Amino acid sequence: MRISELCDVSGVPLPSIKYYLREGLLPPGERTAANQADYGQQHVQRLKLVRALLEVGGLPVATAQRVIQAIDDDELPLTYVFGVAQYAISDGRVFDEVESGAGLETVDDLVDERGWTVSADNPGRFGAARVLDALDSLGHGHIAEYLPQYAEAAETIARADLATLGHHDDRADMAENVVVGTVLGDTLIQSLRRLAQENESNRRYPVGENQ
Amino acid sequence: MRISELCDVSGVPLPSIKYYLREGLLPPGERTAANQADYGQQHVQRLKLVRALLEVGGLPVATAQRVIQAIDDDELPLTYVFGVAQYAISDGRVFDEVESGAGLETVDDLVDERGWTVSADNPGRFGAARVLDALDSLGHGHIAEYLPQYAEAAETIARADLATLGHHDDRADMAENVVVGTVLGDTLIQSLRRLAQENESNRRYPVGENQ
Repeated sequence: MRISELCDVSGVPLPSIKYYLREGLLPPGERTAANQADYGQQHVQRLKLVRALLEVGGLPVATAQRVIQAIDDDELPLTYVFGVAQYAISDGRVFDEVESGAGLETVDDLVDERGWTVSADNPGRFGAARVLDALDSLGHGHIAEYLPQYAEAAETIARADLATLGHHDDRADMAENVVVGTVLGDTLIQSLRRLAQENESNRRYPVGENQ
Repeated sequence: MRISELCDVSGVPLPSIKYYLREGLLPPGERTAANQADYGQQHVQRLKLVRALLEVGGLPVATAQRVIQAIDDDELPLTYVFGVAQYAISDGRVFDEVESGAGLETVDDLVDERGWTVSADNPGRFGAARVLDALDSLGHGHIAEYLPQYAEAAETIARADLATLGHHDDRADMAENVVVGTVLGDTLIQSLRRLAQENESNRRYPVGENQ
């Protein structure tokens, strides 16, 4: 199909499609004439992925680019696709390397207790350390006493995350599942936490009773 | 103490302190002369909170302002502080109201199955619905089969969230705990998920074996 048809079929405006082509988020169509190219079903599918990563996952364009490259790189083992997705969406803020401190020690102790095999540069190690240091400095260090419960929940989540991959036997599908599950999964978990919090809060502190 | 001393004690640069005062993130000091005010320990503590919300929690200034107002409003029941924290950090993107659709039905069924008591306008309801619709349109609808596991993890998290409140008996401390736990807790959970994912991925797909 021509680019105008791709636009109709996908519902994505033409300027956005052209932008994604320029930024390498969408592979070029097959050239059929000097200024004409042919697009297929894989372009429709890719557009859906790009929109979901940007709009539902909230990724910046440069980050979406990186994870899409990881999906397309057939040579990249799946474990590394996880790594790329994790690093990409952990951009900036709190996930930069932390060298030392009480928070990092607590995280490393937790990793030992749970028997987790993780690399020293996993961004989650730094993110968790920064949160623990901030909680401590704010006088809410007692929240760290619940780390085993939070870690247990993280294990339940990670087991489900990995189990979803069993539905595919094609590497490209699995790689896309890794990226989609990691990026949209964060939003899903945040959402379910909001619901469960309201339920638990209503149960413990019914409105109208003494606060 | 004078503002210059507050600057030294807290380590927050003077222009930032002045900005927070202007934006209402920091309450004014006690005026001691025409152009001089006195700041106390509560200002040092509040500066730590502001920095943690902005830098570790990644909140925009306007959002930090809203949750701080909720902490300071003694009349606001705790359940509502949860609500304000949830709504504030769920700003924009995927948490706007969704009117109908398969995703929303799936979320409502899940809420029924778990026996959760939640309001119809909980932002998590819309966020989860949007993620489920996006997964379905991407051909990864099978991820929804693991909703019970994700919901179980969310319950574990929410029980821990609420249990942390038991450490306080002062309303202001509890309200601050609610905000800090909700905002920094999201970052903590994301971080632990990264660690648990790498562990589970290493276990299931050891590098070097066939991918």
